[in-house]
Amino acid sequence: MGTKRVMVPANEVDLTAVKYEPESIQAPHLTGLSLKLFVKVVEAPWIGSLIISSLKKKNNIVEILQNTVIPETPMFKPVFPPQDPEPCVIDLEEDGKPEDRVDIALKCLPHSDAASSWTGHSPPSFRYWRIRDYAYAYRSKLATPSMVAERFISAMEEFSSKKPPAPLLISFNAEEVRKQAAASTQRFEEGNPVSILDGIFVAIKDDIDCYPHPSNGATTWFHEVRPVKKDAVSVSRLRSCGAILVGKANMHELGLGTTGNNSNYGTTRNPHSPDRYTGGSSSGPAAIVASGLCSAALGTDGGGSVRIPSSLCGVVGLKTTYGRTDMKGSLCDAGTVEIIGPIASNVEDVMLVYAAILGSSPSDRISLKPSLPCLPNLSSHESSNVLGSMRLGIYTEWFNDVFSTDISETCGKILNLLLEKHGCETTEIVIPELPEMRVAHIVSIGSTSLCSLTPYCEDGKDVELTYDTRTNLGLFRSFTASDYVAAQRLRQRMMYHHMEIFKKVDVIVTPTTGMTAPIIPRSALKSGETNLQVSGNLMRFIIAANLLGLPAISVPVGYDKQGLPIGLQIIGRPWGEASILRLAAAIEELCADSKKKPLQFYDTLKGN
Amino acid sequence: MGTKRVMVPANEVDLTAVKYEPESIQAPHLTGLSLKLFVKVVEAPWIGSLIISSLKKKNNIVEILQNTVIPETPMFKPVFPPQDPEPCVIDLEEDGKPEDRVDIALKCLPHSDAASSWTGHSPPSFRYWRIRDYAYAYRSKLATPSMVAERFISAMEEFSSKKPPAPLLISFNAEEVRKQAAASTQRFEEGNPVSILDGIFVAIKDDIDCYPHPSNGATTWFHEVRPVKKDAVSVSRLRSCGAILVGKANMHELGLGTTGNNSNYGTTRNPHSPDRYTGGSSSGPAAIVASGLCSAALGTDGGGSVRIPSSLCGVVGLKTTYGRTDMKGSLCDAGTVEIIGPIASNVEDVMLVYAAILGSSPSDRISLKPSLPCLPNLSSHESSNVLGSMRLGIYTEWFNDVFSTDISETCGKILNLLLEKHGCETTEIVIPELPEMRVAHIVSIGSTSLCSLTPYCEDGKDVELTYDTRTNLGLFRSFTASDYVAAQRLRQRMMYHHMEIFKKVDVIVTPTTGMTAPIIPRSALKSGETNLQVSGNLMRFIIAANLLGLPAISVPVGYDKQGLPIGLQIIGRPWGEASILRLAAAIEELCADSKKKPLQFYDTLKGN
Repeated sequence: MGTKRVMVPANEVDLTAVKYEPESIQAPHLTGLSLKLFVKVVEAPWIGSLIISSLKKKNNIVEILQNTVIPETPMFKPVFPPQDPEPCVIDLEEDGKPEDRVDIALKCLPHSDAASSWTGHSPPSFRYWRIRDYAYAYRSKLATPSMVAERFISAMEEFSSKKPPAPLLISFNAEEVRKQAAASTQRFEEGNPVSILDGIFVAIKDDIDCYPHPSNGATTWFHEVRPVKKDAVSVSRLRSCGAILVGKANMHELGLGTTGNNSNYGTTRNPHSPDRYTGGSSSGPAAIVASGLCSAALGTDGGGSVRIPSSLCGVVGLKTTYGRTDMKGSLCDAGTVEIIGPIASNVEDVMLVYAAILGSSPSDRISLKPSLPCLPNLSSHESSNVLGSMRLGIYTEWFNDVFSTDISETCGKILNLLLEKHGCETTEIVIPELPEMRVAHIVSIGSTSLCSLTPYCEDGKDVELTYDTRTNLGLFRSFTASDYVAAQRLRQRMMYHHMEIFKKVDVIVTPTTGMTAPIIPRSALKSGETNLQVSGNLMRFIIAANLLGLPAISVPVGYDKQGLPIGLQIIGRPWGEASILRLAAAIEELCADSKKKPLQFYDTLKGN
Repeated sequence: MGTKRVMVPANEVDLTAVKYEPESIQAPHLTGLSLKLFVKVVEAPWIGSLIISSLKKKNNIVEILQNTVIPETPMFKPVFPPQDPEPCVIDLEEDGKPEDRVDIALKCLPHSDAASSWTGHSPPSFRYWRIRDYAYAYRSKLATPSMVAERFISAMEEFSSKKPPAPLLISFNAEEVRKQAAASTQRFEEGNPVSILDGIFVAIKDDIDCYPHPSNGATTWFHEVRPVKKDAVSVSRLRSCGAILVGKANMHELGLGTTGNNSNYGTTRNPHSPDRYTGGSSSGPAAIVASGLCSAALGTDGGGSVRIPSSLCGVVGLKTTYGRTDMKGSLCDAGTVEIIGPIASNVEDVMLVYAAILGSSPSDRISLKPSLPCLPNLSSHESSNVLGSMRLGIYTEWFNDVFSTDISETCGKILNLLLEKHGCETTEIVIPELPEMRVAHIVSIGSTSLCSLTPYCEDGKDVELTYDTRTNLGLFRSFTASDYVAAQRLRQRMMYHHMEIFKKVDVIVTPTTGMTAPIIPRSALKSGETNLQVSGNLMRFIIAANLLGLPAISVPVGYDKQGLPIGLQIIGRPWGEASILRLAAAIEELCADSKKKPLQFYDTLKGN
């Protein structure tokens, strides 16, 4: 009796009284046998729900969802107040042809130095090949897509023989790749490439349809219940630009985890350190790009699944505004927090792929027109005021709440450089109710994910999922419909708080993750792992962009003492992709001097 | 294993193979002691959930929500495809002043015969006073709002002494009414009435804020946890038009029932037959209008709560398009199926009140402009083609699935008259998946209702709710978050089916209810009643307008053999209020000859 908490309306919250509270997660770290046992108990009729219930209480989930009067009405999907168009951008047509959008994006890039960096038949050193490098090579007859395809196929064969298996792709067909490459090669021979993306190698996460591959979401059985008959919308857009779709990239099963652990197909290893996780859930997409084997990959991001592995693998990952990409043909098309977004080794490549895939679904056409920034040549002298007077919002205590100070210091250095070189001022902000935001997110993503699985689980298929997934499903099953609605009330509050913040700043800047790539426990390889502390560290800064549908990008800014990549996250206003791409490009340029490990196509072939 | 059902995508459903299946509800009819006992068992820890679970299985709820693969993505709130503006209408400004909208609405009405029907100081006989009758009387100094107030107050005093109590209003303050009436009287004396609604008596359902009254939703305690500080948006719009807000009308507790049974305050009696229910949940609003004591009332309609009691009490009730009225300040403001709508004794009064209260909330401003039809003088000769070639959709087997053929025959007669007098053709339609629609609706309304109550229930307040409500809460608590999402997938399907139907017809016509006013069992007065068969009959035709947010209106069309009113329902296209109002006015005119029981202000005073 009398235990309920009454929240004041969001607009009456006293921000000066908000105290940052470091997240404390009460849950066991389980791998191997202990995980198996835990799953058996959690799935047992009565005791299971008692255990879940007790864990939820310990972590304040029950208090937040059931004992709190939340005055806001529910917001079931991100709904934004009207937004001003971004300054200095070029508008794109959502309904236009992807090739035309990519063409416009190309014109937004600074003059290319592709030719000058080529001294003959060998690629430029110490950096990734960019899409424009391939384009130059193809157009100058220095290489053909078929040549690249053969090298790619050899690399895949090498990868497939690793013990224990650590696959980048879990559905791969050499002949499919050869066929696409041959068609592209022929287009170049005929002088008719369809776009800058023609002949560019792109991997597709296993939860996005790419015909004729199955979409398993890295389960062992989803193809049995959901046949793939055609490409997802975003994939068909890439295909119409001439991209070569190499196959289905590995992932954390069903996207329900942040490490990339997968006991069905093997866990993808971090190219920077093979005993460490790539992060997830888009483990394969990030790793295949970081390895230099593909220029880009498509991932899905419902709880950091593009940004986390991009950060841990040292590549660039874009989470688009909710609704900006069409989710038709992805396994998470029923979600309220998920988007499809590109991963590439640099900002300009991300921008090119983004231009190709964007375009909301017809039923969702209530947005600002998509737009792109002109990326000036920042290394030249024309760049003085390229970022205008962009105001960066920082919540310092949150920013510094990281596992190692390497992260906060490296990210902090960038802020100083941005001030020094571009005049970007940082503004201190306060984001209240972070624990509530986390709970609202897990309920939202968990419930829509579970709903898509329920008929199959009822049919007995749940026992064919990984133990990690089954632990999550145990939690998700415990959420009531009332919990779901309460979570959506919290979403409404958090939207208010963030829209207030965006009246004062243009972007919010955080580290992408609270830790760099975690070690893979040996016992986790065979039967998986659940480690919510690690999840908490990886997801600390991730949630707002998902729950509120905001665009966000992770850009590599350096390395920690172990040589593991550190990513910086920029969270933008609704539909603000152009601004965060521009800032990301500036940051990339500022980091160009930091000694980046060259992870080349060729290095990978050498078995690095 | 292998028990799951896989739905084909909505656009592949073969409508020629759809078979109408009469609803069969498996649940006990409980009143008095048996209901008390049932609630005790349902609320007991393990056995309770077993019983609920078994009832859900028997009624196919589990199969529909958990064993069915639903290919559509969830639609959490009604979202409509773009709509053409309606023909022959006058647009209103949502942002304008309510008085101005009412003024426009007034100009849409046919020439008034108010003066001619007045022969002196006595009111016109054998029909309700219309708003324009009061307006004429006030403006001709035949009456003043203060005079009417005194009569109203006497009537309320008489009602308050009834045994057992059967209150129309559950919060009433004579001085408040006198004060408003005096202010209005003074405006008339000064020659400055603010609108046609000045001095018009309006009752407000107890789940809509009307300062200084508490909003209890007809519970005994909601005022303790939710103080009322100002009018709901719709009420403040009425107040600014000069309406006299007489108090808070009785209702089924928290709107969670369709009979109007209320053991907290007493059950409102049907003015046509005091041993029968009014229908609900807006029992008080419909009854106070049917008694002739108020010109209009505001109700809420989340599952027929405006239309059902309007039908059973022989008055007109409008369910507006979802989002057309602003729910701010109502207890069901968090809902996805509820609206605020007017009840009045005739179509023109409903239209005047609708014009006053409409206007979506600022965050919801994605709609067609509201509009009104010109209501021609149908009894004159100018009316030949007033309905254009309006196409009426009829699902015959559904239409005829009523408790007594009086209903289908009376409603059918109207269809014939509409064809004969106005050339309205009926088109046979098929609505598939009606059982799924019912399940999606109960999950949707139940979950948002429960969420608003959960913190108080956790706080021990649930035992202070009626047994009927507690039975419902037992069911609602059993819905999981996954169920909630599944229900929203079904909503998406049903929207598709209905939008396809509206390509072929302009409106769908049904009886409003599958039965006329049910008898109140004596044992139900003290401790309530749960009778899902009666609910099923009352809600049979109601759900689409709620789950899909469509506008709908109930208009009286005659009486059954017991002399109980029969209502006909017109369901319109999204934002199609103008069309259904126009058709309703035509139907009202066609029924003018059917011997309507005069239920006058004065009759009521005589204790009828």
